[in-house]
Amino acid sequence: MGPATTGILDDLAAGLTGGRLVVAEASLEAYRHDFVPDPDAGRPLAAALVTSVEEVRHCLRWATRHRVPMVPRGAGTGLSGGATAVDGCLVLVLDAMTAISIDPTARVATVEPGALNIAVKEAAAAHGLHYPPDPGSFRISTIGGNIATNAGGLCCVKYGVTAAYVLGLDIVLADGRLLELGGSTIKDVAGLPLLPLFVGSEGTLGVVVGARLRLVPQPPPAATVVAVFSTTRAAGEAVVAIGRTCTPSLLELLDNRTINNVEDYRPSGLDRTAGALLIAQSDARGAAAAAEAETIAELCRAAGADEVHVSDDPEEGEALVEVRRMTGPAVEVRGALLPEDVGVPVDRLPDLLTAIEAVAAELDVEIPVVAHAGDGNVHPTIVYDPADVAMVARARVAFERILALALELDGTITGEHGVGRAKRSALAAQVGDDVLEVSRGIKAVLDPLGLLNPGVLL
Amino acid sequence: MGPATTGILDDLAAGLTGGRLVVAEASLEAYRHDFVPDPDAGRPLAAALVTSVEEVRHCLRWATRHRVPMVPRGAGTGLSGGATAVDGCLVLVLDAMTAISIDPTARVATVEPGALNIAVKEAAAAHGLHYPPDPGSFRISTIGGNIATNAGGLCCVKYGVTAAYVLGLDIVLADGRLLELGGSTIKDVAGLPLLPLFVGSEGTLGVVVGARLRLVPQPPPAATVVAVFSTTRAAGEAVVAIGRTCTPSLLELLDNRTINNVEDYRPSGLDRTAGALLIAQSDARGAAAAAEAETIAELCRAAGADEVHVSDDPEEGEALVEVRRMTGPAVEVRGALLPEDVGVPVDRLPDLLTAIEAVAAELDVEIPVVAHAGDGNVHPTIVYDPADVAMVARARVAFERILALALELDGTITGEHGVGRAKRSALAAQVGDDVLEVSRGIKAVLDPLGLLNPGVLL
Ligand SMILES: Cc1cc2nc3c(=O)[nH]c(=O)nc-3n(C[C@H](O)[C@H](O)[C@H](O)COP(=O)(O)OP(=O)(O)OC[C@H]3O[C@@H](n4cnc5c(N)ncnc54)[C@H](O)[C@@H]3O)c2cc1C
Ligand SMILES: Cc1cc2nc3c(=O)[nH]c(=O)nc-3n(C[C@H](O)[C@H](O)[C@H](O)COP(=O)(O)OP(=O)(O)OC[C@H]3O[C@@H](n4cnc5c(N)ncnc54)[C@H](O)[C@@H]3O)c2cc1C
Repeated sequence: MGPATTGILDDLAAGLTGGRLVVAEASLEAYRHDFVPDPDAGRPLAAALVTSVEEVRHCLRWATRHRVPMVPRGAGTGLSGGATAVDGCLVLVLDAMTAISIDPTARVATVEPGALNIAVKEAAAAHGLHYPPDPGSFRISTIGGNIATNAGGLCCVKYGVTAAYVLGLDIVLADGRLLELGGSTIKDVAGLPLLPLFVGSEGTLGVVVGARLRLVPQPPPAATVVAVFSTTRAAGEAVVAIGRTCTPSLLELLDNRTINNVEDYRPSGLDRTAGALLIAQSDARGAAAAAEAETIAELCRAAGADEVHVSDDPEEGEALVEVRRMTGPAVEVRGALLPEDVGVPVDRLPDLLTAIEAVAAELDVEIPVVAHAGDGNVHPTIVYDPADVAMVARARVAFERILALALELDGTITGEHGVGRAKRSALAAQVGDDVLEVSRGIKAVLDPLGLLNPGVLL
Repeated sequence: MGPATTGILDDLAAGLTGGRLVVAEASLEAYRHDFVPDPDAGRPLAAALVTSVEEVRHCLRWATRHRVPMVPRGAGTGLSGGATAVDGCLVLVLDAMTAISIDPTARVATVEPGALNIAVKEAAAAHGLHYPPDPGSFRISTIGGNIATNAGGLCCVKYGVTAAYVLGLDIVLADGRLLELGGSTIKDVAGLPLLPLFVGSEGTLGVVVGARLRLVPQPPPAATVVAVFSTTRAAGEAVVAIGRTCTPSLLELLDNRTINNVEDYRPSGLDRTAGALLIAQSDARGAAAAAEAETIAELCRAAGADEVHVSDDPEEGEALVEVRRMTGPAVEVRGALLPEDVGVPVDRLPDLLTAIEAVAAELDVEIPVVAHAGDGNVHPTIVYDPADVAMVARARVAFERILALALELDGTITGEHGVGRAKRSALAAQVGDDVLEVSRGIKAVLDPLGLLNPGVLL
C-alpha cells in the first residue's frame, strides 16, 4: 500500500464511526471468497465493516469518487462466488447491521441486511408469526444475502422463494443515492416494478440496506413421509405425481451416494442400498396433514416405492428433515467440491436425475445429488481430489456437462444459488444475447461506472 | 388522413396477413378508451388486430420506423386508462391471439396474450389443475392485460397475484426485438431478474406476446363465512385478527352503501342496515376447511360481529361470492364513476375505511366501498352525476383526498389496477424523484424513443 492509497483510505475510515475498516492483509483473507474456496479470488484493498445506512452511503460515495470496485458481502455462505473479491476492491461487509423489528398487526418484519434468516424466524415466532424462506443455510446466512440471491430452500415448494416475501427494500446505489422501494403494503403496483429487479441481482445493481418482509401465521406441525425407491427415476416420477395432486410443504430427494455420505458421516439408519429417498411433509391444518401425507404415500407406492413410512410425530419429522440438512456437512468431508444448482421443468426431473448418473459413471467422479425435488431444483455436488490433476479436469467437465444437460432439458443453470462468478460464462447459452444486452443496459442505468460487484452475473 | 399517412398505412397493412387493420374513424371509437370513459382520450391513427408474434413485431418495427406511438390493448377492461388511446397512435389489439396449451405433467400453461383468464382456468381444469389469479374481470379480461397490470383478485389473499404465476414471458420490444425471459422452470435465478420488471409495467416497456404460467392442483371446495358488522371499523379489525391467525382463500368486505347497491340491483337478502359485511372462505383440505371457517367466525364474533353464518355447502358459498361479484354492475347503474384502488398495510385498514366514510360525508358524494380486505386493498368507487358540475368537482376532490389518505397511512395509490393515465400525476408523491428518475432510465433502455404507451405510468 503506497502513501496515495493510505490517503484515500483515511478518507474512507473517517466516515466509519460505528463501524471499522480492515486493511491488514492477513485479516482480509476472511473476506476473499464465499463458502467455496476460489484460487482466483482477488485481493481486496480493504473491507469496511459497516453499521449504518449512512456508513454504507459514505463507502459507496467514496468508492465511486475513487473508482474502487465494491463487493457487497453478507455472511459469505454463497456457493457461486458472488461475494468473492476482485483485486483492489472494497468489500462491504454488512453482517453487523442486524436490527429486526416486528409489527405483528401489520404482519411485517423490518430488518437490517445483516440479520440472519434464523433471527428473523425467531423474532417472528415470538409473535406467533412465521417467515417462510428457509435456505439450507438459514442458520448462518443473512437476509441481505438471501434477498440478493433470491434464496430458495426446503419449504419453497409450498411457500415460494424469498421474492414472495419482500414488500419493501431500501437500496443504496453505487453513487450513494438511497432508493426506497415498496413499503409494508401487501399489494402495490404503483410505478414500474423496480423492487423485484433487485431481488436476485446478486449485489450488481445496489446494496440492500433494509427490507420489509411479509410474515404469515405459524404453520401447523407437519406430517412426514419417507419413501425408499430403487432408482432416482422412480423417485422423480413420484415427485411429478405428487405435484399434480397435493401441496406438500417439503419435498426433498437424496440419491444413493448422498444416503451413503450421510451414513458415513453420522449413521441415521438409512438403507445404504436404496437408489433414492424422498422426504415429504404436509403442514395442512389438523387432520388434513395426516390425510395429505397418506395421499403422498399412496403416490409413492404407485410410482414403485419399495418402502414408505408415514409419521405425524413432529419430532420424528424434524429428525428426518435434519437428515436432509446433514447432507451438506456429510459431503464436505469427502473432498473438494464443485456445487451445482440446476433446475428443470418438473416433468424433466426423472430424465435429469438419470442423465446425471450417466455423467458420473462416464467421467468416473462422485456426484452425490440432493434436490428440492418438488420445484425441479437439483444440487449435484461434484467431489474431487484437488491433488489428482486428471480428476480435477474430469470434475470441471462434469460441471459443464451438467449445465448443458439442464439447458437441453429446457431448464436453468441456477435455480437458487445464483450465477455469481462461477457460472458467468454459462449464462449466455441460457438467456441469449438480446437478454444480456438489455441486462447490461439496465446495469448501466444503476451503476454507470460498473463498480458494483464487477465480474458477477454480467 | 392525407396521402402520406395512407402510404405508410399500406406498409403496415401489408404485414398483417392473418390480422387486419382498422382505420375507419367510427370503428376506431371502440379502441379509444378502456372500461372507464375518458373525455380526454385521443384519436388513434389505426388499430392493428394482430394474430401472431410476427405481426406484432411487424407493427412495432413499423411504428418505430415512423415514430408512431403504440398502445397495447387486451380486452380493454382496465380501470386506470392504461389502454386509452393518444392522438395519432397505433392501438395494438391482442385479443385475437387466444391459443392455450396445457402441459399437465410440467404443470404449465403456454398461453397467447389474448386468451381470457377464464379460458386458462377452464383449460387447466380439464387436467385437474388450476390457475389461481382471479380478478373480478376474470371472465372478460385477457392474460396479457393481467400480466401487464399484475392483476390481483379475490383469491390472492392466499394464492398471491399474477406475478406469482408467471414463469416465462415472450416480449416484443419497441424496436421489434423478441426477448424470451424465463421458461417453464419453477425456480430460475439465471441472470438479472428481468421477467418481473415486465409484470405490472402496463405496456410501457414491451408487448407481452406469450406467457408460461404455473398451475397448481385444483383446490378443494371451500367453506364460507359471512359476518355482519355494525361498522366498517369493526369489520376491518376482524380482518386484521383473521390475517394473524388463519389463511383464508378469500376475505372480502362490502360496506353499507355497497350492500344497498346490491339489494337495489338484485335483491339478495342482505341486511340493508349493516355497517359492513365480510365474506371469507377457507379451502383447506377436508374437514380442515370447516374448522378454519369456524375459527374465522370466532374471530368475527370477538371483533363484535352482530351475526355470523358458516356454511360448508359449496353452492351456497358460490352464491355469496357472486354477491361480491355483483357489486361491480350494481354500482355501474348508479351514475358516472371514479374507481379507486388504494392499498394500505393491513393494520391500517380500519383507519382507512373510517376515513373514507368521513370524506364521503364531508364532500357529500356517494362512495360505496368493496375491498380485497385481507390484502389491505380497498376499492372505493366515487359515484357522481356528470350533469352536476359542482358534484363532478367534489368527486374529483374526493378522488385526490383518498389517494392522499392512502399515502398518509403508508399505503399505495394503486394496489392492483395500475397507475395508467388516471393516477400518473399522483405517482411522484408516493415513490419520490429518485425512483422516477431510475424508472425513466430503465424505460429509455427498453424504449429509447418513448413510443410504447406514452403518458402511462411515467
Ligand atoms: C450449507 C449451505 C446450504 C445452503 N442452502 C441453500 C438453499 O437451500 N437455498 C439457497 O438459495 N441457497 C443456499 N445456500 C447458499 C447461500 O447460503 C445463499 O445464497 C444465501 O442467500 C447467501 O447469503 P449470505 O448472507 O451468505 O450472502 P453472501 O454469500 O455474503 O453473498 C451472496 C451474494 O449476495 C450479495 N449480497 C450479500 N449481501 C448483500 C446486500 N446486503 N446487498 C446487496 N448484495 C448483497 C453478494 O455480493 C453475493 O453476490 C446454502 C449454502 C450453504 C453453505
Ligand atoms: C368488473 C371489473 C372487475 C375488475 N376486477 C379486478 C380485480 O379484481 N383485480 C384487478 O387487478 N383488476 C380488476 N379489474 C381491472 C382489469 O380487468 C384488469 O386490470 C385486467 O388485468 C385488464 O386486462 P385487459 O385484458 O382488459 O387489459 P386492458 O384494459 O386492455 O389493458 C390494461 C393495461 O395492460 C396493457 N396491456 C394489455 N395487454 C397487453 C399486452 N399483451 N402486452 C403489454 N401490455 C398490455 C395496456 O396497455 C394497459 O396498460 C376489473 C375490471 C372490471 C371491469
